[in-house]
Amino acid sequence: MTSLPASMTAIAIREPGGPEVLEPTTRPVPQPGPGEVLVRVAAAGVNRPDVLQRMGFYPPPPGASDLPGLEIAGTVVATAPGGDPELLGQAVCALVAGGGYAEYCVAPAGSCLPVPPGFSMEEAAALPETVFTVWHNLFERAWVAEGETVLIHGGTSGIGTTAIGLSKLFGIRTVVTCGSAEKCDAARALGADLAVDYSSEDYVEAVKGFTGGKGVNAVLDMVGGDYLPRNLACLADDGRHVTIAFQRGAKVEIDIADVMRRRLTLTGSTLRARSADFKAALADEIHGTLWPRLAEGGWKPAMDESFPLAEASAAHARMQAGAHVGKIVLRVG
Amino acid sequence: MTSLPASMTAIAIREPGGPEVLEPTTRPVPQPGPGEVLVRVAAAGVNRPDVLQRMGFYPPPPGASDLPGLEIAGTVVATAPGGDPELLGQAVCALVAGGGYAEYCVAPAGSCLPVPPGFSMEEAAALPETVFTVWHNLFERAWVAEGETVLIHGGTSGIGTTAIGLSKLFGIRTVVTCGSAEKCDAARALGADLAVDYSSEDYVEAVKGFTGGKGVNAVLDMVGGDYLPRNLACLADDGRHVTIAFQRGAKVEIDIADVMRRRLTLTGSTLRARSADFKAALADEIHGTLWPRLAEGGWKPAMDESFPLAEASAAHARMQAGAHVGKIVLRVG
Repeated sequence: MTSLPASMTAIAIREPGGPEVLEPTTRPVPQPGPGEVLVRVAAAGVNRPDVLQRMGFYPPPPGASDLPGLEIAGTVVATAPGGDPELLGQAVCALVAGGGYAEYCVAPAGSCLPVPPGFSMEEAAALPETVFTVWHNLFERAWVAEGETVLIHGGTSGIGTTAIGLSKLFGIRTVVTCGSAEKCDAARALGADLAVDYSSEDYVEAVKGFTGGKGVNAVLDMVGGDYLPRNLACLADDGRHVTIAFQRGAKVEIDIADVMRRRLTLTGSTLRARSADFKAALADEIHGTLWPRLAEGGWKPAMDESFPLAEASAAHARMQAGAHVGKIVLRVG
Repeated sequence: MTSLPASMTAIAIREPGGPEVLEPTTRPVPQPGPGEVLVRVAAAGVNRPDVLQRMGFYPPPPGASDLPGLEIAGTVVATAPGGDPELLGQAVCALVAGGGYAEYCVAPAGSCLPVPPGFSMEEAAALPETVFTVWHNLFERAWVAEGETVLIHGGTSGIGTTAIGLSKLFGIRTVVTCGSAEKCDAARALGADLAVDYSSEDYVEAVKGFTGGKGVNAVLDMVGGDYLPRNLACLADDGRHVTIAFQRGAKVEIDIADVMRRRLTLTGSTLRARSADFKAALADEIHGTLWPRLAEGGWKPAMDESFPLAEASAAHARMQAGAHVGKIVLRVG
């Protein structure tokens, strides 16, 4: 086994604030604990929760690294004592509880998935956070099935582009909303069956038109606020509404009689707070069902732009500007 | 086969209004259509939806009788041409889409269940509406399991007493709310693990105290309005909230961030509007799982008072007065 350095370069949050508070720093290389592996990071995904964490709104869960970064791809270079030696040297991507913006990062062994054949490290780093999130919320919490139709807000975001791709792969029709005609074009090019420019069109009417008045079977929502009643109006009988963020506010008014009469279901979840056991079970499920399709070339994540690790602040500025389509990643190794 | 009379006595709703608008009338004996049987009614259950229908707030679904009455027990006296002759002469209880307040009533064959051994016709007539409602909403929509705890409002209502009984039968702990100390005593006598007098005590605090701060796994709610946020505050992580009525209003405000962070689920349903296929599948499920327990003497419905068919208005007056504990039924045969 290659000997490991004692210290590494990482990106720390100097203080809560704008993109400029992200700065390179030197940290000890972390040690894998029981059930963990150490990964030499080749690429790290950038996600909206990282931006919220940088602003001070999304503190790391207890025990997690204070460094940002929820997903990585790279090579396993160490295991905890008693860990599986077969993992050493493997190219993996992993969901991590933090610390991804660094040259080395510990990951639960159960959250590691092999880099799919034909995927670059950057593409692999773009998978875990959005794939785990979309998989659990769309397929498990909203139990969306082949032949159904789903409404997804933020069609060109990392979540949106992943939801379009995975839906298409499994025979689910997608209606997405985007903030401009250009983004709608991009979403359609990625496979969206209908893209609605919310700046010029009422998405509720568009959904009704597209579904012959019936409505969609599920909504994947990261908007909240005044979108909630409009989202529910988009749902068909027995429709499911899943909240994964609430950019327009958390206090929402709903008509519980409508929920009852049309047998709607409202739920939601956050991924980061879940137990290692939950994440390992989800990784297993995804490995068994999605990974074979990726190996066949069924889908790759939409890649926006990559930045060197040292320019993490530029990556955040790009995400906040909102002009990106698909995933933003950091090149590390 | 006994020859059937051409006409029968039934209770009709003269016009929307108070209990006095229920009056005996003469109607033709109905004819069973495809997949239906004709039942000579021995007893008919009285339910809150009947009261709402009488007031003009709950019109019968298309194709249903305009006569009130959603559940009956009696003897099968005719089938549709081509129907199963083995049903003739059987003592059954049945969920019906209307028309139960009558000497004869048609029922879908799939909604009929045998009168359990040891049950009187009155007890059997008290089963279908509340058992089907509680079963679907508590065990299916809220997937409550052995060892869990559920909060039920209206602990001494037909729904409440049935929910207490079925929960106890399947190892589920119940917290109920009632409007007086006497009703709390009655609910405890029926098996409620905790009964909270909402006129003198905050049920949210009581639930927190009873569950060691953890909360209940599910809420069966028929109150709505300002109870909604309080109900959600009673739920443990991953808790489920099921709406079956909304006596305090349908417009509710919820914190969708809380729903997301604690992975709550809100849903609900109405039974009457469901398809005959759905009701038949639910009847099958209940026949396979609950009926053997009833045959063993595991549970009987809490019976309040019975009234002759001609005194249906007195039965409604009793339900509206709100002093009843358990089921009110009409004696017909």
